[in-house]
Amino acid sequence: MTPEATLARFREYMVGPTRFMNLLSCFELGLVDRLRDNPGLTAVKLGDAVGVKPDAVEQLLQLMVKEGFVAYDEGSGAYSLAALGGVAEADLERALAFMGMIKVAMLRQMFYLTESVRTGSLVGLKKFYDFDGTLFDAAAVHEDIRDSWGRLAQLETGNVYGWFFQNLDIPAGSRVLDLLGGNGLGSIMTYRMKASPGLHVTNFDAPEKEAESLRNFREHGVEEHCSFVGGDVFTDVPAGFDLVLIKHYLDMYDRDDVLKILKSANGALEVGGQLVILAPVYPEDITDPDDSQIDFFPTFLLGCATAQGGLQKVPTYRSWLEESGFALTRVVGKDPADIPPDAIPKRFIMFATKTA
Amino acid sequence: MTPEATLARFREYMVGPTRFMNLLSCFELGLVDRLRDNPGLTAVKLGDAVGVKPDAVEQLLQLMVKEGFVAYDEGSGAYSLAALGGVAEADLERALAFMGMIKVAMLRQMFYLTESVRTGSLVGLKKFYDFDGTLFDAAAVHEDIRDSWGRLAQLETGNVYGWFFQNLDIPAGSRVLDLLGGNGLGSIMTYRMKASPGLHVTNFDAPEKEAESLRNFREHGVEEHCSFVGGDVFTDVPAGFDLVLIKHYLDMYDRDDVLKILKSANGALEVGGQLVILAPVYPEDITDPDDSQIDFFPTFLLGCATAQGGLQKVPTYRSWLEESGFALTRVVGKDPADIPPDAIPKRFIMFATKTA
Repeated sequence: MTPEATLARFREYMVGPTRFMNLLSCFELGLVDRLRDNPGLTAVKLGDAVGVKPDAVEQLLQLMVKEGFVAYDEGSGAYSLAALGGVAEADLERALAFMGMIKVAMLRQMFYLTESVRTGSLVGLKKFYDFDGTLFDAAAVHEDIRDSWGRLAQLETGNVYGWFFQNLDIPAGSRVLDLLGGNGLGSIMTYRMKASPGLHVTNFDAPEKEAESLRNFREHGVEEHCSFVGGDVFTDVPAGFDLVLIKHYLDMYDRDDVLKILKSANGALEVGGQLVILAPVYPEDITDPDDSQIDFFPTFLLGCATAQGGLQKVPTYRSWLEESGFALTRVVGKDPADIPPDAIPKRFIMFATKTA
Repeated sequence: MTPEATLARFREYMVGPTRFMNLLSCFELGLVDRLRDNPGLTAVKLGDAVGVKPDAVEQLLQLMVKEGFVAYDEGSGAYSLAALGGVAEADLERALAFMGMIKVAMLRQMFYLTESVRTGSLVGLKKFYDFDGTLFDAAAVHEDIRDSWGRLAQLETGNVYGWFFQNLDIPAGSRVLDLLGGNGLGSIMTYRMKASPGLHVTNFDAPEKEAESLRNFREHGVEEHCSFVGGDVFTDVPAGFDLVLIKHYLDMYDRDDVLKILKSANGALEVGGQLVILAPVYPEDITDPDDSQIDFFPTFLLGCATAQGGLQKVPTYRSWLEESGFALTRVVGKDPADIPPDAIPKRFIMFATKTA
């Protein structure tokens, strides 16, 4: 890579934040919706319609025209949807939900990425919300974060859990441990999707999750099949399970803590017992242009969500599993055709067996 | 453009902010400098050196490795500079100055782009600095903005003014009006670079600029050749000049105000008098991949700097000049070989003659 090419790439990076916000703002202002309803509006008419000066409308639409998202007719000054007109509404909604999360939960906070990495704490979350803890804890307290996150989580959950349970076999009557199962909704789903005589799902999490989890079990009528055990995931996980589920968070811990969690999972199983991990995973070839996880997750996790952790490649997880008394037996990724082109996370299911 | 390609492009936009901050943070943390001094450090040694956990070092360097900026040896776990090692220090410094400005003056503020466009005011500057006015006004009051802007301005000034004055002929003894010349340093430079018997440069700006401008004239020993006139640029510009200079701000006004400023310039000249405008200009083909101004300036100006204005193409300026009694006679751009690949602004000099 020549110095010239390197500096040109820096320029691409420099316009990353402005490109993002310019695109999102065209949606927020309602410019895209107006053009969908009324193709051929001029900047003056669009400005009137959304309450913005025509000069600003023209400026913000320049990038949309440059990208081919919107078309502009020089002669008449009329705008209409180009590529944006062809994208299905559900696809746009999903992409906008993710962009909304980036805006609310990340854009300002990542200003403090360097300080967050230095201190191992989310300095941005502290500065803007006076909050100590993770983004997910903050979502429980701050409505704007909860809204931006919830919209996304809802869309993602349907998308991910359906596929996850399709690929998960749980033998009849299994005793399942849902490790760090939070509010218990994952345990409930596990019971419902895999119900069999004697199947029991135990949600293990911090004691303060107990009340909400038990309430959810009752409200969903599964209190006979799901239970809660509270404690510290590093030290208090009980034994006596056939299968341990680790869903959605292994990437949020540094190596030492991942190993402790895997050790806890190991202690919960007999030799031959199963561990199933659902997590986003870096591609083996990190230059894969279809995978943008490396471009996103370090700043998301370290600067905005947890101040620690990070995705790993499968070989890293394999070696960590072996170090923890497991053998990785199978890795299942989604069919690429089922992953929307705007999706950043690429989740895998890793199946492992306790060997020692 | 297919819906799939459009959504994939959205993903590129979504990773824009994180990419930017991840790259900058690698410099801020000192990772790049350490690798320059000590090629072959592992994540553990790098982490020790800069006071950061090795897990975080690994995560932040993933993107550098993906881009080919940094090399990683799987066997030994050693990092070394790849493409970044080949970039001259002065080039890196210039790019980092720009990135620093984006971080301090834009990254948080652009969260409020939509509100800024709706209200015609810089909502982000108000929220984060409790400041009413432009980014340039705020730089006078807030040290972090001044520092991030000043570092950039210094690098840019040398770069731009040398070229500007090389291309500017000022006949001996001319009476020059430096319209909105601010602190007078541009007037001083004009006098120095183009000195001739009888050459006089008048800085016209708001009355509150008078003291600083006159002090600068005295300190540079040009008080006999440079003077200050205070007033409103829309209404109070005096007549009697041979040449009017408009440097660096025409893009910061909406159309109506640009026309008023051009009218003021017109009133300052006799027919045949010269107007010289220095401004960044959009390319005629807005899809030109070597030009990133459209990706940057709308959000910069509307969300972060002025809450109005925007770059235009040359034909737009030509028509606005004609509407204001000028004929555009010549447009000079920098030799592309003299524009660094990381540079976003592309400035042009537009020469016009008063026709009516």
